[in-house]
Amino acid sequence: MTFVDPTGPTSYSWEATDEAVADRYGVPIEEIVRFDLNTSPTPPELIAPLLAAGRFETTLSEYPPSDYRRLLEAAAVRYDAAIDELLVGAGADEVLDIIAKAFLPAGGAAVVPVPTYAMYRVLTEQRGARVIGVPRRAAAAGWALDIDAVAGAAREAAVVWLCSPNNPTALPEPDGSIEALLDRLRADAIVEGRTAPLVVLDEAYAEFVGTSLAGLRDAYERLVVVRTASKAYALAGLRVGFAVARPEVIARLNPYRPPGSVSTVSVTLVTAALTDPGVLERNLRRVEAERARLRAALAAAGWSVGPSVTNFLLVDFGTPGRAAAAAEGLLRRGLVPRTFPAGHPVASCLRLTVRDPEENDRLIAAADEIDLAGEVPA
Amino acid sequence: MTFVDPTGPTSYSWEATDEAVADRYGVPIEEIVRFDLNTSPTPPELIAPLLAAGRFETTLSEYPPSDYRRLLEAAAVRYDAAIDELLVGAGADEVLDIIAKAFLPAGGAAVVPVPTYAMYRVLTEQRGARVIGVPRRAAAAGWALDIDAVAGAAREAAVVWLCSPNNPTALPEPDGSIEALLDRLRADAIVEGRTAPLVVLDEAYAEFVGTSLAGLRDAYERLVVVRTASKAYALAGLRVGFAVARPEVIARLNPYRPPGSVSTVSVTLVTAALTDPGVLERNLRRVEAERARLRAALAAAGWSVGPSVTNFLLVDFGTPGRAAAAAEGLLRRGLVPRTFPAGHPVASCLRLTVRDPEENDRLIAAADEIDLAGEVPA
Repeated sequence: MTFVDPTGPTSYSWEATDEAVADRYGVPIEEIVRFDLNTSPTPPELIAPLLAAGRFETTLSEYPPSDYRRLLEAAAVRYDAAIDELLVGAGADEVLDIIAKAFLPAGGAAVVPVPTYAMYRVLTEQRGARVIGVPRRAAAAGWALDIDAVAGAAREAAVVWLCSPNNPTALPEPDGSIEALLDRLRADAIVEGRTAPLVVLDEAYAEFVGTSLAGLRDAYERLVVVRTASKAYALAGLRVGFAVARPEVIARLNPYRPPGSVSTVSVTLVTAALTDPGVLERNLRRVEAERARLRAALAAAGWSVGPSVTNFLLVDFGTPGRAAAAAEGLLRRGLVPRTFPAGHPVASCLRLTVRDPEENDRLIAAADEIDLAGEVPA
Repeated sequence: MTFVDPTGPTSYSWEATDEAVADRYGVPIEEIVRFDLNTSPTPPELIAPLLAAGRFETTLSEYPPSDYRRLLEAAAVRYDAAIDELLVGAGADEVLDIIAKAFLPAGGAAVVPVPTYAMYRVLTEQRGARVIGVPRRAAAAGWALDIDAVAGAAREAAVVWLCSPNNPTALPEPDGSIEALLDRLRADAIVEGRTAPLVVLDEAYAEFVGTSLAGLRDAYERLVVVRTASKAYALAGLRVGFAVARPEVIARLNPYRPPGSVSTVSVTLVTAALTDPGVLERNLRRVEAERARLRAALAAAGWSVGPSVTNFLLVDFGTPGRAAAAAEGLLRRGLVPRTFPAGHPVASCLRLTVRDPEENDRLIAAADEIDLAGEVPA
């Protein structure tokens, strides 16, 4: 649920707060559950004792360590990268902003395959650059990239924004597809005597599918992979994200990295979460089990739930009107779905995060209760 | 002490880490003391129990509250501003970046009175905008702004970056000076039929002098005042800063504010620190007492220490060579000064943070020991 200011310039899209939803729908605030943010339901257990111990890399009156050294060492092991192949940001969003600053000039252009994460458009437009939107293939074709169309649009682009598994479509690109695109972009650039565009591959949800394409950087120097602690590590509140790329790409990003945008507390806690052998596995098992259960139960309630390798589901209600009616029914129960505005490629859909069993039970009960019979079907 | 990459583009200037200094000078890492970062020596006492309680506004697996509501409410009381006159960022540095994005176009220009905080130049150049450097008056004239020169340069500028009390010169602008400049900029703009430039007044050190010019926003709509939790609140590790401006200015900044760059832990802790009646006062008393003692003792050691209303001192060694020799003597003892590169207006100076009594004692002892007799005097 997003309350957008339609009169402002291209804006970051802030989600409505719990308070705003509670006020608008008359639901007690403690009953609000966020199915719209693709977060994981509970933070890792190791967090509480670390906070209680209160021992951080540096005392909190000092700035965070300017090189985030220990955090980078932990990320290097986790992402199988060298220290000079990594960059830290205040969430993946800051990493994306740093990439835009370094590689996307004002007056330039960037390719955005749609539908996808809204931030790529916002960051491109805020740079004073132009968005070239390229539709993805249909849901029946797994929402896959249209390689020819993306490559064609990329001829005039400085940056290509990719997301796999993609948000909000919940599916990864088909095997070999991104390599094929990278090959094509390189070949076109050589023929035309120019530099290939930078390809940003946002892997915010990669842990849920268990594979990463970060290793492609060895063969394709114009690739930056973006990772985050917000999704599979269940630490969205700490704001830590990473870029993984070849050292020469990181060296171009580094001048735009602020000296210390990530809190020292976040540095210490995310270092611990990345280093712990069990944090990720436990959350993945939990999400996987609940995803299967939630998907089956919503389908049993008559909802058309797409396949998902992520921690969220895309449900197609056939028409924007039916999607809006379903959203209204959920919101009246304090359950906040991600909606899409009129004209959006998935305006007939809601996106729903897989949460903990009790919360998912409330969503399932709501799906059973909400009556869409009065709405015009697809 | 900054290790700069001279071959890169305009870069944020990361301070050398404790580890880097320890390695380079062969000092045990636990003996390194940062006199170069203008931080306060210990965080507020209320921090540890809050961390141990582990109760934050939202669980750490969720994103921070997108409106930072409670933090804004605390800031509103502290800074005597309405909620819609405030913006939160990941440290003052992110606030400055948001201002640059909203008000400084690529190809535009910004005025930077020098010497001052290095970030204004970096942010301007990273926007693809031009820096118009305007020298301040001499040390003997309190490093005051040259109002005529600033106003002249501002005719072609979109932004004027001011800092009062100024870093590294440790003094505020004379009474009435900034109002006079704002009047002048407005009058010039009216005569020439254009919009006056936005004036950014960085008040990172305002608490130490006990006054703020944020109230001028009522009379001067083209003013943004920047505040921080990093200096007088002794919470640099949490990365929280604010803009204070008229609602219409904040409304222009807001679209560039990322949806959640500040960690939930930081939100909760800084809310508490701003709300507590004693946190600020205790640190101010401590810094004030130590500043007087440190200044007197360094002067007694023969060092030429300028006046200061801040938590740092600017010491003039007469020549860059003598400043470098003094820095070397300090670094060999694990005491890290802020140095200035060749050609910098204060290249003959070191900037030294007022720290806790024991740390200041080490600095005083070093000043007594370091022999600059072999260096060419001023």
